[in-house]
Amino acid sequence: MLTTRSGDDLRARPMSVYAAQFENAIYFLTDASSHKDDEIARWPNVCLALADTKGQKYVSVSGTDEVQNDREKISELWATPAKAWWDNPDDPSIRILKMTPFSAEYWDSLGTIISYIKMAAAAVSNSKPDMGDSAEVTL
Amino acid sequence: MLTTRSGDDLRARPMSVYAAQFENAIYFLTDASSHKDDEIARWPNVCLALADTKGQKYVSVSGTDEVQNDREKISELWATPAKAWWDNPDDPSIRILKMTPFSAEYWDSLGTIISYIKMAAAAVSNSKPDMGDSAEVTL
Repeated sequence: MLTTRSGDDLRARPMSVYAAQFENAIYFLTDASSHKDDEIARWPNVCLALADTKGQKYVSVSGTDEVQNDREKISELWATPAKAWWDNPDDPSIRILKMTPFSAEYWDSLGTIISYIKMAAAAVSNSKPDMGDSAEVTL
Repeated sequence: MLTTRSGDDLRARPMSVYAAQFENAIYFLTDASSHKDDEIARWPNVCLALADTKGQKYVSVSGTDEVQNDREKISELWATPAKAWWDNPDDPSIRILKMTPFSAEYWDSLGTIISYIKMAAAAVSNSKPDMGDSAEVTL
């Protein structure tokens, strides 16, 4: 679930995740009406929490969000879950929420951090982060 | 998972939840070393995200946190999951993280909000909120 901030208030929403490993980005499709561009511009910091409670695997990814209206990218990301929302990728109300992660934590049980990945330098310079050894999590 | 704020940064952590329906509170046991009291005092707003991905049920609860050191309450909340962390409820490093929710959202699929519960008045006055019709979610 993706937690966003509006003023002091924090809220989470269930969203489909499109991870783009080589772009250092995580994409979500969202509706133009559901997120206020100015709120995201003002409070861009977000947190993506992924939980596989059965396998006791948890991931927290911190980063910043921006709203994009790249129609080519929307077509590229278009997939089955999106059909519950829009008829086709040409719907003009579809927007991309592009998250640039700057750190991530991974647990394989409640409270035991297995790895912490910091991507601050990459987020600032837009270069690719050195991910080091990372664990693969199926969620 | 519980998302907290430190400055602009948002981070989530997997935590065991102890919901106290009649106290309008959600409790977590935490270690004195894991949360900085001054950070929580400065940025008390938190968001608890619960997901049952198999059943496609999602809950987001927004509220404020405070750290407490109520030893009687700690003994009352002491349960099996806590044993992975501390030997017994007398461990002096155990703290209570008391969350007072002020709003909650519930989805039964990606993106379809089923109910929204606002508890702002109750949070301010410390009286019990009028929950209205609520859905029970097994997570």
